[in-house]
Amino acid sequence: MRTQVAIIGAGPAGLMLGRLLERAGVDAVIIERKSADYVLGRIRAGVLEQGAVDLLDAAGVGQRMHQEGLIHKGIDLAFDGDMLNINFEKLIGKHVMVYGQTEVTRDLMAARQDSGALTIYEADDVAIQDFDGATPRVTYRKDGVTHTLDCDVIAGCDGFHGVCRASVPEQSVTSFERVYPFGWLGVLVDQPPVGEELIYAHHEHGFALCSMRSNTRSRYYVQVPSDEKAANWSDDRFWDELRARLNPATAAALKTAASIEKSVAPLRSFVAEPLRFGNLFLAGDAAHIVPPTGAKGLNLAMSDVKVLAEALIERFLERSTAGVDGYSPTVLQRIWKAERFSWWMTSMLHTFPETGAFGRRIQRAEFDYLASSLAAQQSLAENYTGLP
Amino acid sequence: MRTQVAIIGAGPAGLMLGRLLERAGVDAVIIERKSADYVLGRIRAGVLEQGAVDLLDAAGVGQRMHQEGLIHKGIDLAFDGDMLNINFEKLIGKHVMVYGQTEVTRDLMAARQDSGALTIYEADDVAIQDFDGATPRVTYRKDGVTHTLDCDVIAGCDGFHGVCRASVPEQSVTSFERVYPFGWLGVLVDQPPVGEELIYAHHEHGFALCSMRSNTRSRYYVQVPSDEKAANWSDDRFWDELRARLNPATAAALKTAASIEKSVAPLRSFVAEPLRFGNLFLAGDAAHIVPPTGAKGLNLAMSDVKVLAEALIERFLERSTAGVDGYSPTVLQRIWKAERFSWWMTSMLHTFPETGAFGRRIQRAEFDYLASSLAAQQSLAENYTGLP
Repeated sequence: MRTQVAIIGAGPAGLMLGRLLERAGVDAVIIERKSADYVLGRIRAGVLEQGAVDLLDAAGVGQRMHQEGLIHKGIDLAFDGDMLNINFEKLIGKHVMVYGQTEVTRDLMAARQDSGALTIYEADDVAIQDFDGATPRVTYRKDGVTHTLDCDVIAGCDGFHGVCRASVPEQSVTSFERVYPFGWLGVLVDQPPVGEELIYAHHEHGFALCSMRSNTRSRYYVQVPSDEKAANWSDDRFWDELRARLNPATAAALKTAASIEKSVAPLRSFVAEPLRFGNLFLAGDAAHIVPPTGAKGLNLAMSDVKVLAEALIERFLERSTAGVDGYSPTVLQRIWKAERFSWWMTSMLHTFPETGAFGRRIQRAEFDYLASSLAAQQSLAENYTGLP
Repeated sequence: MRTQVAIIGAGPAGLMLGRLLERAGVDAVIIERKSADYVLGRIRAGVLEQGAVDLLDAAGVGQRMHQEGLIHKGIDLAFDGDMLNINFEKLIGKHVMVYGQTEVTRDLMAARQDSGALTIYEADDVAIQDFDGATPRVTYRKDGVTHTLDCDVIAGCDGFHGVCRASVPEQSVTSFERVYPFGWLGVLVDQPPVGEELIYAHHEHGFALCSMRSNTRSRYYVQVPSDEKAANWSDDRFWDELRARLNPATAAALKTAASIEKSVAPLRSFVAEPLRFGNLFLAGDAAHIVPPTGAKGLNLAMSDVKVLAEALIERFLERSTAGVDGYSPTVLQRIWKAERFSWWMTSMLHTFPETGAFGRRIQRAEFDYLASSLAAQQSLAENYTGLP
């Protein structure tokens, strides 16, 4: 089998790249290790920047998002119970769209199924070959038979633990990483969200986040040690701890129910450089990880594949390599700014035992300064809603 | 001997407090451990916010500052040789005044001498007594004789290592501290400054600062390990290292000469809480230390004593304790915001081995974000020129 672009990974990055290439007339095949249902079962972020919204529209998959997504004009910050509303619309005339990553993936999968473009799910032993040479190809096993997909370009959209970045010789890639000493214990519940906006709360026990997937489904998080097990947390224990970290009015308004899902996610900052190795291009979580505090993971993946799709279309349709040559430096600029913002939001809102009492006062001062400064609020707003 | 306010320390905080009280008709005596010449021999910061300029004017000691001080419209930041001008005037319509702390002290000393107000220099074994009770007093030895100064209020303006904060029972005061793993090696030289504005430079070797005291006297710094000795640095070694940390054009323009002064200063963030203990009030470095990166030390001292002078005047002339009761919470709000900014400037511009390669990329992203964002530049400008 032969294609122009072999895309590894059928998450939102791979699916969006496939969609954009397909609409431009560039041939692509997606190879995914897991089943479609498994991919859809992953619970992920749910805040889309305007750029991601525009990309879904441009890809012709924005209809359901506009019907079901929730436009959010801002976020609430809380520090030891004191509340601060950051109104993006008033500050900079922008907003974000709350629409679950799972739903984005579902819409992209449905569009791909309609179009008949090929996605190979449940491909075992995926390996990439000769991506730095003249005959790039992907090998995999399916139903016990080994297959080879010959291609011109391989797009590594297979996530942090995927095979693509791992196939690059160690001396060719530099990794930048910070692993935080905590994770988020998240609970999904069929109840209306406690607040109109997302609430990011700092408390001496640690961070808490009140978010939502829709008007009837909420997602709540509390900071826990990174080695904590979700099994140690009954629903009651979770709700008690969450209430303790919110201000009294918010805690009283919280509507609880039996959890649909409960899991601990580690927090990590990670960037690989460069993102191009001959005919292999990394995009999304395969290239970088942000802690979820700034809601940047999915948005960065979308901006990566937008640039990558344009570069590949230029290469295949216009026979120009300017786009692919510029891909890595172009997207890294944006990636590092988002990494900085995610690191900053994480640093301001979580508890860090190693920074001690001084560190906590600095966090409080950050909150107080934000509360008093238009420029600081505009800076937060422009980062949260997405830098140009 | 008896006075209303015994001021411990004849640095700029103590002298300014004495000046403001004297002009309002509140009686104050200043007691200083060292000689006036020793105090004037200390090399310190030289950037005044508008609030400090206004205070010098209000105190009637601003004449020479306006003649000799340099109005600076902004600062330059540099990162691995890339330059970024932050123009305060364009961004927020404000500026700062470059005028050495030594000169401020000299002007205040001269004014005090003219007025005949009492300053006791070279007072040994200064001790403060019963500041939480009915008979506050200061004891000291002068020329071998022990003296007692009875008073209503003691103002601790005696710096970080002074006797005032150290006299407060340990359980009554909370200290918040961060000691940085480096210091600044500073050189004073009679040469025109290399740039029109101060240049704050980050380089992989560490931080460097090009500053000035006047149009003919410059002050340069390089980050060194905190246990480094100035004696290990010949002038040649210093200039070589400074040039290496600047961009080539700046390095080429640097005018060197034999150093007048060369010393290593540690970097520390420190805040004591509260700042009032009965009839004892702490102000300036006795209460808090900032790393010099944000040029906030002298300015914070000036804003402390402005609030303290108003509070004491209210107490003695209007017989109201509202001002003194509010002193500590009022100034701590401002102190913590300045601590935050000084910590941020320090964190962005120095090298921190413990944050590794990821930390350095975050610093670079901070610089790149600053270069691209009006809101971020306004935030820096409003902090550097002084928050309201």
